[in-house]
Amino acid sequence: MNCRVCKKKAVIAIPRHNTAFCADCFDKYLMDQVRKTIKEFRMFEPGDRILLAVSGGKDSLALWEILKRLELDVLGYHLDLGISEYSKESTEKTRAFAEKRGYPLIIEEIESETGATLPVIAESTKRPPCSACGLSKRHLFNRAARQHGCQVLATGHNLDDEASRLLGNILHWQDGYLEKQSPSLPAEGGLIRKVKPLNRLTEKEMATYAYLKGIDYVIRECPMSADAKQIFYKKVLNDIEKESPGTKQFFYFGFLERLEKMFPPSSENAPPAGSCKVCQEPCYTDICSFCRLRMKLSPFPETQETAESSINFITPNTH
Amino acid sequence: MNCRVCKKKAVIAIPRHNTAFCADCFDKYLMDQVRKTIKEFRMFEPGDRILLAVSGGKDSLALWEILKRLELDVLGYHLDLGISEYSKESTEKTRAFAEKRGYPLIIEEIESETGATLPVIAESTKRPPCSACGLSKRHLFNRAARQHGCQVLATGHNLDDEASRLLGNILHWQDGYLEKQSPSLPAEGGLIRKVKPLNRLTEKEMATYAYLKGIDYVIRECPMSADAKQIFYKKVLNDIEKESPGTKQFFYFGFLERLEKMFPPSSENAPPAGSCKVCQEPCYTDICSFCRLRMKLSPFPETQETAESSINFITPNTH
Repeated sequence: MNCRVCKKKAVIAIPRHNTAFCADCFDKYLMDQVRKTIKEFRMFEPGDRILLAVSGGKDSLALWEILKRLELDVLGYHLDLGISEYSKESTEKTRAFAEKRGYPLIIEEIESETGATLPVIAESTKRPPCSACGLSKRHLFNRAARQHGCQVLATGHNLDDEASRLLGNILHWQDGYLEKQSPSLPAEGGLIRKVKPLNRLTEKEMATYAYLKGIDYVIRECPMSADAKQIFYKKVLNDIEKESPGTKQFFYFGFLERLEKMFPPSSENAPPAGSCKVCQEPCYTDICSFCRLRMKLSPFPETQETAESSINFITPNTH
Repeated sequence: MNCRVCKKKAVIAIPRHNTAFCADCFDKYLMDQVRKTIKEFRMFEPGDRILLAVSGGKDSLALWEILKRLELDVLGYHLDLGISEYSKESTEKTRAFAEKRGYPLIIEEIESETGATLPVIAESTKRPPCSACGLSKRHLFNRAARQHGCQVLATGHNLDDEASRLLGNILHWQDGYLEKQSPSLPAEGGLIRKVKPLNRLTEKEMATYAYLKGIDYVIRECPMSADAKQIFYKKVLNDIEKESPGTKQFFYFGFLERLEKMFPPSSENAPPAGSCKVCQEPCYTDICSFCRLRMKLSPFPETQETAESSINFITPNTH
C-alpha cells in the first residue's frame, strides 16, 4: 500500500477517505484536519491562553504537541485521580512528557481537593465513578482556568469519542446532552469556553500520530470505566464503520450541521446564574455540586485557600 | 418462568417490559398493543376499507388475522415478484392462509405488469432489486387501493423493521426518509393513507403470535435482500438491546415524539402534483417512475386496460 500523495510506502490506511499516507503526508493531513476544525468551529481567538486537560493518554498528549506546533499558548493541567497504579502511571507519563519538551504543567490531586481518592469517593457517595470524576473535573478545570488566566479549555476527545457519545445520546434521546454536544461551547455564566480540536480524527489516527512522534502514553483504559457504555458504543460504531466506511464521520458531522435546528438551546441547559458560597465557582444553587461532594466526604470541608495549596507546578511557565 | 399476570407457565419473556406471559395473556397483551397503536396514531376512521399488503411472511399474515379480529374491513393484496421458489412459496402460503379463513385476497404478478420478473427487472435496469421492488409496490398498492375502494394501506412492519430503518436513516441523516417515518402517513396528492399497526411489537413477538395461532408462513428472508443493510442494522440493534433492554423501543418512540419538531415537512417530500399520462396514477412529472420502468423493459408498454387484466381474485370479497 502506497501513499496517495507521494507514492512512498504508506504507514496508515484511512478507509473513510479512501486513502493512505506515508508518515510525512499523514502528519500534514493530521495537522490540516486540526487546523480546519479550529477554524470551522472558531475555537480560539488571538491572544487566547489555553488550558489543556491532559490525562496521559495518546489523545491529550498528542493534542498538546499539536497545539504547540501551531504556536498556541498552552498550559497543561493534569488531575491525579488516585486510582492506584493507573493514576501513578498517568501522572508520571504526563510529567515526563512535559519535562522532556519544557511544556508548562499543573498537577492537582483529587485527594488533596476532597480528602479522598476517586475509588473512595465513588464508594462513599454511591455515585458511579465516571459521574464523580466528571463532576470533579468540570469544577477543577474551570477553577484552574480562572486561576491561571486561561480563556478556553481544550480536551483531547477524538472522533470515536464524540461519535460514540452521540450514538448513546441519540439512542436514549438525551436532549440535554445532545444540545451540548458541539465541539465548541461558548463561555457562559462563569464557565469558560470548551473546545475539542481532535473531533475530526479517529482513535487509530491519534494512536498512529503518537507512535510516529515517539509519544510515551498510557495505553490501558481507566480501570474504573472498563465496562462503561461508551466503550460498548465505540465497538458498535466500529462494526458499522467496517460494514460502511465513513459512517462514523458522516453521522457525527451530519448531526453537528443539524444540531442548532434540531436541539435549540433549552432551559434545561441554562448557564449557572450565581456562584458557590463556599468556593465562588459558577453555581446553580447556593453551594456547587463539587463542594457538596466534599462536604459529604468530610464534615469540615477545606477552605478555598487550603484547597489551592495542592497546586503543584512542576515545570515553570516559560512561554 | 411464569406469566406475570396469571402465574401459569410463560411462553414468552419480554425483557424490555421486564415481563413474561402465558399464551392467553400474551394474546391479550399483543391485541392491546395493536389497539393502542391504532388509536394513538389515528390509523383508521369508521367505515374505512383497508388494503393490507401481504407478503406471506409472519408479520403480514398475523396482521391480517389481528385486523379481522378487530372487526375491520380488510382486503388482502399480494404481489407475486417472480423470485423463483421464494415467490412461489410466498404466493402459495398467502393463498392457503386466505382460503382457509375465507379472507378476500387479490394477487397480482409483477411479470404481468411489467413483462419481467423482479430478478430480470433488476438485471435489465441495473437498479438494486430492493429499489425496483419498492417502486413497483408503491405504485401497485396505491392503484389496487383506488380500484377497490380502499381508503388506507396497512403494512406489517414491526418494531425491529422500523427501529433498524430509523437507525440506518439517522446514521446517514437521510432527512427525507426520516421525515416520512411516521407509522401513519396521511393521504395526499392522490396517494392513500399508509399505516403500520405492528410498530410496537418485535420480530420475536410476531413470530410467537404466528406460532401460537398456527399460521403457516414463509420463514426465509427474500433471497434478493439477503445482504441488505437493514438486516445488518437489525443485528446491530439486537446487540444493543441485549446490552440495554428497552433501547430499541425507546429509540424509535422517542424519535416519533420528536419527529415533527426535528423534521418538519420539507419541499423534498411534497406530494405528487399531477397524474401520470400513461396510467393516471399520482406523479411528479409527466410519466410516473413505474411506467418509465415498464418502458425501459419493453418499448411498447402495456396500456392500463391490459395491465389490469392481470388482477386475479382468488377468494370472493364476501364481507
